[in-house]
Amino acid sequence: MTTQPRLQLALDHTRLDAALTTVELLHPYVDIIEAGTILCISAGIQAVSQLRERCPHHLLVADLKVADAGATLAEQAFSHGANWMTVICAAPLPTMASALEVAERHQGEIQIELFGRWTLEDAKAWRALGIKQAIYHRGRDAQASGQTWGQQDLDTMKALSDLDIELSITGGITPPDLPLFRDIAVTAFIAGRALADAPDPVNSARQFRAAIDAIWRP
Amino acid sequence: MTTQPRLQLALDHTRLDAALTTVELLHPYVDIIEAGTILCISAGIQAVSQLRERCPHHLLVADLKVADAGATLAEQAFSHGANWMTVICAAPLPTMASALEVAERHQGEIQIELFGRWTLEDAKAWRALGIKQAIYHRGRDAQASGQTWGQQDLDTMKALSDLDIELSITGGITPPDLPLFRDIAVTAFIAGRALADAPDPVNSARQFRAAIDAIWRP
Repeated sequence: MTTQPRLQLALDHTRLDAALTTVELLHPYVDIIEAGTILCISAGIQAVSQLRERCPHHLLVADLKVADAGATLAEQAFSHGANWMTVICAAPLPTMASALEVAERHQGEIQIELFGRWTLEDAKAWRALGIKQAIYHRGRDAQASGQTWGQQDLDTMKALSDLDIELSITGGITPPDLPLFRDIAVTAFIAGRALADAPDPVNSARQFRAAIDAIWRP
Repeated sequence: MTTQPRLQLALDHTRLDAALTTVELLHPYVDIIEAGTILCISAGIQAVSQLRERCPHHLLVADLKVADAGATLAEQAFSHGANWMTVICAAPLPTMASALEVAERHQGEIQIELFGRWTLEDAKAWRALGIKQAIYHRGRDAQASGQTWGQQDLDTMKALSDLDIELSITGGITPPDLPLFRDIAVTAFIAGRALADAPDPVNSARQFRAAIDAIWRP
């Protein structure tokens, strides 16, 4: 019996006040709150501290997609209240190692964000460093250009799981997509616009939760 | 006769006020000012608009290392006054295309930041999209772990030049390194801590300029 996947709210607003309004509405219905890249670049790292202040008991992710300067950016993320921080898979191993060192000092974790070219050998090297999480990502631009989830995605996810890497999954996911991932040990499903921009965001969050409960019984 | 490389000041401060103090001191001695990733994440996109306000006539780069959401982040960068914005090489082509479309609407340019795994076939695809610039990068963490410039770097730079991609070069560069790049058509040398953290930053900038003048006569 695998652990039940959690629901992660990605805040990708360009205005911090709009993100805070969304989180005020939705935080009771999600397990993890993410300060998205767009929000962090628009408002700066204060986005993370303001979310931490409003949601003291949630897991909080700083989605910085760090490519370099791992220690400095990890210090920014974790000292402002993040529990997890993302590093892009293209980052050099020394960047991952320095980010991880800072993360561990803060009892935090690093998530590798999978984009572009990477190999299972890379994934083994990340795991050997001590990194336990990755984010399997269908980019919003790739998604907008029509790319869908396929067997190859699922096979790759399975291979990562077999390396003992926990996966969060994102990229235009909606509740009807969830059965696709039935056989993957999913840490979290990450939803942004599917929650924040829904006509009824609370109802949308409840539908995600019901779909998760139906597949992975609580 | 190639064009003379320009000198780019990368501001990678975690405090905007410190970055503004540095730029106040050094802007007369550099051609291009970069709002670095660390600064943009620490202070948010206002770092770009504040630099634009203080340096209305300099080329201004927003080093966002965009991996996704190309149009949204490009709109943030260019509407706040950037001339150039970086996209990481791991970004999907649709992300590059959407960033480029916004850049061109603002008479701006996209620079591909080269990190991790990429191929010359990728570079051809970027060039075919209409992207003309890339940044050849020795990461600060790779650099701290002892990685030096080598013949392989120079060969790769030459191959990119042959694809008609203009290169900026960064990663712990100091004036004595410049002769290494004598045969490359370099758009800019990017220096951050070598300028900002020098005992005498103005003198350091003058030494860069003298080294550029000595190799690429003005």
